[in-house]
Amino acid sequence: MDNLFNDPAAVRALSQPLFQPRSIALIGATADQAKNNSRAQRLLQKTGYTGRVVPINPTRTEVMGLPAYPRVQDAPGPIDHAFIMVPAASVIDAVAGCAQAGVKVATIFTAGFAELGRDGLALQQRLVEVAREGGVRILGPNCLGLFNVTDGVPLTVNAALEAETLRPGWISVVSQSGSMMGALMTRFQDRGLGFSRLVSVGNECDLGVGELTEMIVEDEKTRVIVLFIETFRDSIPLARAARRAHELGKAVIAFKLGRSETGRILAVSHTGAMLGGDELASTFFRDQGIMRVDTLEGLVELPRLILGRTPPRGSRVAAITGTGGAAALVLDRLGNMGPTLVGPTEEMRARLATTGLEISDAPLIDLPMGGTRKQYTDVLAELLASDHCDAVLAVLGSTTRLRPGQVDENILSVPLGAKPLAVFIAPAAEAGLTKLDDAGVAGFRTPESCADALNAYLTWVAPRVFPTPPAALLRQVSDTLAAHGKGALDEVQSGAVFAQLGIEGPGSQVVTDAAEIGDFNGPVAVKVLSPDILHKTDAGLVRLNVIGREATATAVTDLLARARTAFPNARIHGALVAPMQRGLIEVILGYRHDREVGPVVMLGIGGVMAELKHSLSVRLAPVDEATARGMIADLPELRVIDGFRNLPRGDVAALARAISAISLLACLDGVEVQEAEINPLIIRAEGQGVVAVDGLVVIGGIKEGDAV
Amino acid sequence: MDNLFNDPAAVRALSQPLFQPRSIALIGATADQAKNNSRAQRLLQKTGYTGRVVPINPTRTEVMGLPAYPRVQDAPGPIDHAFIMVPAASVIDAVAGCAQAGVKVATIFTAGFAELGRDGLALQQRLVEVAREGGVRILGPNCLGLFNVTDGVPLTVNAALEAETLRPGWISVVSQSGSMMGALMTRFQDRGLGFSRLVSVGNECDLGVGELTEMIVEDEKTRVIVLFIETFRDSIPLARAARRAHELGKAVIAFKLGRSETGRILAVSHTGAMLGGDELASTFFRDQGIMRVDTLEGLVELPRLILGRTPPRGSRVAAITGTGGAAALVLDRLGNMGPTLVGPTEEMRARLATTGLEISDAPLIDLPMGGTRKQYTDVLAELLASDHCDAVLAVLGSTTRLRPGQVDENILSVPLGAKPLAVFIAPAAEAGLTKLDDAGVAGFRTPESCADALNAYLTWVAPRVFPTPPAALLRQVSDTLAAHGKGALDEVQSGAVFAQLGIEGPGSQVVTDAAEIGDFNGPVAVKVLSPDILHKTDAGLVRLNVIGREATATAVTDLLARARTAFPNARIHGALVAPMQRGLIEVILGYRHDREVGPVVMLGIGGVMAELKHSLSVRLAPVDEATARGMIADLPELRVIDGFRNLPRGDVAALARAISAISLLACLDGVEVQEAEINPLIIRAEGQGVVAVDGLVVIGGIKEGDAV
Repeated sequence: MDNLFNDPAAVRALSQPLFQPRSIALIGATADQAKNNSRAQRLLQKTGYTGRVVPINPTRTEVMGLPAYPRVQDAPGPIDHAFIMVPAASVIDAVAGCAQAGVKVATIFTAGFAELGRDGLALQQRLVEVAREGGVRILGPNCLGLFNVTDGVPLTVNAALEAETLRPGWISVVSQSGSMMGALMTRFQDRGLGFSRLVSVGNECDLGVGELTEMIVEDEKTRVIVLFIETFRDSIPLARAARRAHELGKAVIAFKLGRSETGRILAVSHTGAMLGGDELASTFFRDQGIMRVDTLEGLVELPRLILGRTPPRGSRVAAITGTGGAAALVLDRLGNMGPTLVGPTEEMRARLATTGLEISDAPLIDLPMGGTRKQYTDVLAELLASDHCDAVLAVLGSTTRLRPGQVDENILSVPLGAKPLAVFIAPAAEAGLTKLDDAGVAGFRTPESCADALNAYLTWVAPRVFPTPPAALLRQVSDTLAAHGKGALDEVQSGAVFAQLGIEGPGSQVVTDAAEIGDFNGPVAVKVLSPDILHKTDAGLVRLNVIGREATATAVTDLLARARTAFPNARIHGALVAPMQRGLIEVILGYRHDREVGPVVMLGIGGVMAELKHSLSVRLAPVDEATARGMIADLPELRVIDGFRNLPRGDVAALARAISAISLLACLDGVEVQEAEINPLIIRAEGQGVVAVDGLVVIGGIKEGDAV
Repeated sequence: MDNLFNDPAAVRALSQPLFQPRSIALIGATADQAKNNSRAQRLLQKTGYTGRVVPINPTRTEVMGLPAYPRVQDAPGPIDHAFIMVPAASVIDAVAGCAQAGVKVATIFTAGFAELGRDGLALQQRLVEVAREGGVRILGPNCLGLFNVTDGVPLTVNAALEAETLRPGWISVVSQSGSMMGALMTRFQDRGLGFSRLVSVGNECDLGVGELTEMIVEDEKTRVIVLFIETFRDSIPLARAARRAHELGKAVIAFKLGRSETGRILAVSHTGAMLGGDELASTFFRDQGIMRVDTLEGLVELPRLILGRTPPRGSRVAAITGTGGAAALVLDRLGNMGPTLVGPTEEMRARLATTGLEISDAPLIDLPMGGTRKQYTDVLAELLASDHCDAVLAVLGSTTRLRPGQVDENILSVPLGAKPLAVFIAPAAEAGLTKLDDAGVAGFRTPESCADALNAYLTWVAPRVFPTPPAALLRQVSDTLAAHGKGALDEVQSGAVFAQLGIEGPGSQVVTDAAEIGDFNGPVAVKVLSPDILHKTDAGLVRLNVIGREATATAVTDLLARARTAFPNARIHGALVAPMQRGLIEVILGYRHDREVGPVVMLGIGGVMAELKHSLSVRLAPVDEATARGMIADLPELRVIDGFRNLPRGDVAALARAISAISLLACLDGVEVQEAEINPLIIRAEGQGVVAVDGLVVIGGIKEGDAV
């Protein structure tokens, strides 16, 4: 469906009725305080909403003091936003009524749609049709609603909000899990943090995480957007939102379920959406400039660490502690992630020495006997002011429990602001943490969340700038592919596409008869050419290391006969004769238009080990050669061809060119490649290039149809 | 040094003066309240210690109301325990005085020893000599002391204890990090947990974590022992303590620094001890029946989960939630660890159906709309009573923040005790957590610590029973090795040892002259035989695939000449001629007497990839064949020879025998093998055995000298 609006005016036009409606219809309103549905109206009263509230109830003329109407189309207009709480069977009628009444957006709390399986999905599809025909945008169904805290507009029946008075602030939350809204809200709230927009997206039948984030990113009060994600349903607008956030100096941070197979299954059974590989998610986040955290507390504590920051220049952390063991807890964990711990500089040590403090060049600055207050603040000020690190970790020990004032003395007396400062307090020390909260300094309760948040910040990069594709070349490739139409190309056709992209094949020959075989020096491989037969090796349709014209002829004749017998319905385009290839190592080079995150390019190690021991590097496509080099560096196995121990070097430059070339399939015009794979791609010695020995291209269809 | 006492009477004999002294000398006592040292006496007064306290101060006859003496040997005896706080330069005199006064054990708070580097280490060694000569056992130096909470005996100047009144209880803590004592104490304390023994071990110049744990495990009040470890200094008594804990139905849980290289360096610079590989630590913990946690909160929250438990039969967890997203947070993380999530059984579903609750067979029991109280407790009771799982996870949602009573209704009303129950509360909900604390139920604040603790319990196994080694065989091997004396054996000598253990070599021949070459079918490898030349391939002293008698003779002559020229001082025992070996895959099989954890056997993948992509399985040695099979299963790469995709099977049984055989080096009599390695060990097809192509044995010395 069309959720790809890319127009700031459209964003504003929807944002207003969604988050700042001048009038709200509560469809399913009731005065029965025991019912959940009554809460929507109570919450609007509680926050002092100043717009018009119109209860809709089939049997009442008044609900909690306000005039009620049987149907939304009976109420006086205009109505900006409807909040729908009626049973699932009545939702479509309610939405039709909204259309008739000119309601711009409806938030559907009611459950009983796609999350229930096939029947529910059918009901949801009808709902979407009715909404689209009537020009009503939908949030939900099966969502907890939203809360514009800045303007005091709750559109929800969330019980948590009855007891809780949320503080306005600069965090906005978009969550695919309704049940996690309360957990996130309360955990932020207890850290003294406030909110601007909170949205539970439910089934995302229309408005999804991406478009909602696009709207929220334009909200002035919002400075950090927190995403709780189970699956991607609209990665294109989400990518756009993340890039816009970067432009505006705002940060987007994500927690995503599905790190394990169990988690993926749970995420799916919970939402009825597609499976998603976790590496693809990480790739998407990194390439779009979104920080990803691994722990729930990390998600809660990261916003304060990165408020107002932009991606760091490096990933170097400096650390000061008065208590070695506790600092080691954070740094040990961080040591298995990306960032590097850097010790003090020579100048810093010299300057500190003039104050009487001699510190070693050890990476962790561990003050002897905990140090004095002045020593601690002198070092901390040096680290915060220095260019040699990108973030600072300060650790406080047991004394902070007894004397929370140590937070003021050791931390808050130092001029902050130069770079992110993470403070870990080793003992249970709520009073000290509250002082940090009050001062807006990121204080951490666990070494794990501290390491997680530092890692998220220190590995944060700006959204990757995609290379500009060579238009003429893409035109040629598009034309070639368009001529084939939808479906799988055979090996020769696929090889021709790769060759057009500049990735050479083995110089093979197609023959339909043994008599056509040309001259080959050395051994050849012979295999049947058919787009309809997969796993040709398993079917006995491949012979390797065939030597001499006669043996080759026999192999061609045999294999063609065998294929025709075994696969009578397959299209058989002949036999392929190709010189056997040797090189230093084999890789698998792949491209895929992923249904969740869009086009990606993948590099993996070839051979049977690839299946047994997962080793893969992934980027959103397209990539330039520099990014391709980064992918090569991701795979430890490829160090054997990149200058390891005097082993012969492979043509890594040619491999990088090949990766970049195949990634251009993301930029075709009029044709969507669903997937492409070269397996194996043989890497020869330096200067001798790479060879695509076998490969496959599958055309998914016409480009216009590929919206997620 | 002799810290290997293995005698229950000796344990008791030391335990009494250490933890329950009838009289205590405070060496360095002062009445100056501003000084740290005054605190030791104040804390003894605060806890109402009923024994005799003797302040030692060179210039006072009275300190805080008690008669003081200039030296401990001047005070009236007997004195069980001395707490030493004087400057480092005076510590040795103080210990000598203790010896003279018949003091049984001294705890040294003073820092300035091994942790400072070489000079400090020398001072510490002198200290140890004086103590040993005088028969005084030492805790520390550089330690925070100890606290027997059960009997109210603090021997420490820990500032935290002045404000904190610790509750007596069943947790004991032994920590190598003094600075973490306060963090652990306060975090347990705030969970409502109490203590029996708390010990900060400092530099462990005499009493170490192992012996202290041996004493603590015999303490009646102690039921769970928590270890905070930076490095292993006495793994033998620690292993003994862990096994004794298992006998007594007590649990030992460990947090160890050093998961990352950074952490290992920090642990080392902090304590002056040896580097230790993290896998070795995990191996040690698992094989000795110690649970290991990965997070600090996991360490704090695990004791309640496992109190009174023994290792589980399986590693299956069942889960119930009223809020899917929050449960998925725990289970997603757990899904990347060892345990398995199991759904409800058929019988369970049938029984629940009779109460009107229909649940699916999905692995996570996610009650529709959160479920009613009765539904929740019905399911929870079923899970807790059922044999199909080994632990239960119950998740509570946002409501628990508003209504902590939900904890009583949904959790505490169910009969507990059948198996461990972990409760994760999704929102910030201190009141609910306190209810769980009060009821003795394990409540978790973060999904990460919940998964960590569940994983630690569910992967807990009883201490591994080591196989009984075949005495006659070991006698033979010991004799062979003893005949060589200390140092490296050459390849032929090493091969003979492996052959004695039943691991066959390639059938090679040693020649000192080309004329001696025997008859070989097929290609051979020729290499120089010398225990003094490492890296023979790099030195050009190996030729592979030599075919025919003449070429072999030339190779032998060439290589011997080249070796004599290049290494004039090396012992050259001739040239080795061996048939080239082929097999399905190569592995590295190693044995090592590790300085930290003792004898271990290691299995890794061979070839250059081994260095680039770490893949290794380790166990404490010796291992039987079943354990060896487990090691083979640890390496995903070995699935290619164990029934993967119709690939030819390798002789996995022979590999298991070889692993078990080399591990017997741990059981030799009178000889200590420092390390042994077969690289490569070639695995042939099923039924055709394995071949040790090359190998090395290094004899470390006479067994009597191997104490850590």
